[in-house]
Amino acid sequence: MNLENYFISQFKSEHIGDDGALIKQNVYSKDAFFENVHFKHEWMSYYQIASKAMMINISDAVAMNAKPKYALLSVSMPPRITKKQMKELASGFKDVADKYGIDIIGGDTISNVKLDITITIVSQTKKPLLRSNIKKGYLIAFTGELGRSKKDLKKLMNLGKIHKKSKFIDIKLRDKFLSNAERFLSSGMDISDGLFSDLDKLSSVNRVGFKFNTKILKSIGCSGEEYEMLVAFDKRHKKAVLRRAKQSRTPLNIFAKSVRKRYVNCCKANHF
Amino acid sequence: MNLENYFISQFKSEHIGDDGALIKQNVYSKDAFFENVHFKHEWMSYYQIASKAMMINISDAVAMNAKPKYALLSVSMPPRITKKQMKELASGFKDVADKYGIDIIGGDTISNVKLDITITIVSQTKKPLLRSNIKKGYLIAFTGELGRSKKDLKKLMNLGKIHKKSKFIDIKLRDKFLSNAERFLSSGMDISDGLFSDLDKLSSVNRVGFKFNTKILKSIGCSGEEYEMLVAFDKRHKKAVLRRAKQSRTPLNIFAKSVRKRYVNCCKANHF
Repeated sequence: MNLENYFISQFKSEHIGDDGALIKQNVYSKDAFFENVHFKHEWMSYYQIASKAMMINISDAVAMNAKPKYALLSVSMPPRITKKQMKELASGFKDVADKYGIDIIGGDTISNVKLDITITIVSQTKKPLLRSNIKKGYLIAFTGELGRSKKDLKKLMNLGKIHKKSKFIDIKLRDKFLSNAERFLSSGMDISDGLFSDLDKLSSVNRVGFKFNTKILKSIGCSGEEYEMLVAFDKRHKKAVLRRAKQSRTPLNIFAKSVRKRYVNCCKANHF
Repeated sequence: MNLENYFISQFKSEHIGDDGALIKQNVYSKDAFFENVHFKHEWMSYYQIASKAMMINISDAVAMNAKPKYALLSVSMPPRITKKQMKELASGFKDVADKYGIDIIGGDTISNVKLDITITIVSQTKKPLLRSNIKKGYLIAFTGELGRSKKDLKKLMNLGKIHKKSKFIDIKLRDKFLSNAERFLSSGMDISDGLFSDLDKLSSVNRVGFKFNTKILKSIGCSGEEYEMLVAFDKRHKKAVLRRAKQSRTPLNIFAKSVRKRYVNCCKANHF
């Protein structure tokens, strides 16, 4: 067990294990977005940094089929920051909040060595989508295309430039597809650590393995920060799910089915 | 306006302005506790760091007369951390959570250069205590003793040692007094930035000044991180409030009354 998982294993709440914690109809989620851990400040404008910090957090809410309502920000400001940059940062937070109907209700700002952000999202759902509920024989699918995020990160690490519409900067969420298809989906999560690593989580929770119907390269399966959706559903809902995907213009790739087999994640760990 | 306040002023939610954001009967609060900003790792054990991070966050809930229910942790781990230290850290979070009946329901852990913690607390209240509602002629009081925190911080900065029961390490909250006296208190907040700075906030919100009935030295009024309570109440409740303070063994110092006068904070700003 890596140290990160060891730390998490110390906490035993029944609410831990999904993209957010479900309590009655509320979902609580919280993710960090830290300079030199998740981004370098040369890579993105302050506006883009704030927007992405919001989007990766909203992704957890959307992944549970919840509607984000409130956000709390914690922002540690680097000493170099100017008033103009701070305004840009605030605009990034606010524009995404406005787009999703989120009220930014509080938080904390401090002065620190670098720009480190954590965001808490309070969201609401009547039909939560959890990581559990996968039975053997269910179909497994992901939305959109995978692999671009890892490629673009590599470019940035090699001092290259990426398009401002790159998924690494400008995340698209699949909230329309999820709310359209909610009746037919059994299980879901967002692809933040990478398809293969996130399948590993579904495998542990549901005690199933996966039989792939197509070969997926490591460059695709090990690409993290994709923020596409990974979903599972009963095969008798296949047509209905595909129809809802089409209606919401969401490419949907059914790439595996759940089986009684051990799943082995072949990606190297990102953390620690 | 300093840069921190400028940033906060960019957000206009009606829920911003108290120690936490009140939405129906829920209170949401979030505070950062960062290495080299709020503590140095030589000053405290990992257990003490985690406990204090929890306590300063619970203080916001208690200050609003709310009962903390859930916590989300975001912990950035330094590369030097060992498994043993991580366990100590987890114990610090858990022991305080257990003491206050809080369920730690999620969060995020990352690998970073230093130990930076943010905590979100979800709490519940039937009778919230806000910063507003002070009328002219109300009595203003603080609990406990002030000044020790600043003195102890100075000792630590000069490489001295402090007692492990020092308020700088081991915070006592005034939840018993607050729940006992809730009927009689009009307004309240915790003293985190220092008495004089926190009076400044009450002054802005309520458009009142304060007439002191006793001289308070800067070494006391400008001492931050005290986590005592600052409260206001109608003078006809004076006896009742003092009785409840006594019942809960809480020293209560009535030091001023609110007046139609401008208030001037004589402390230097801590931030930025």
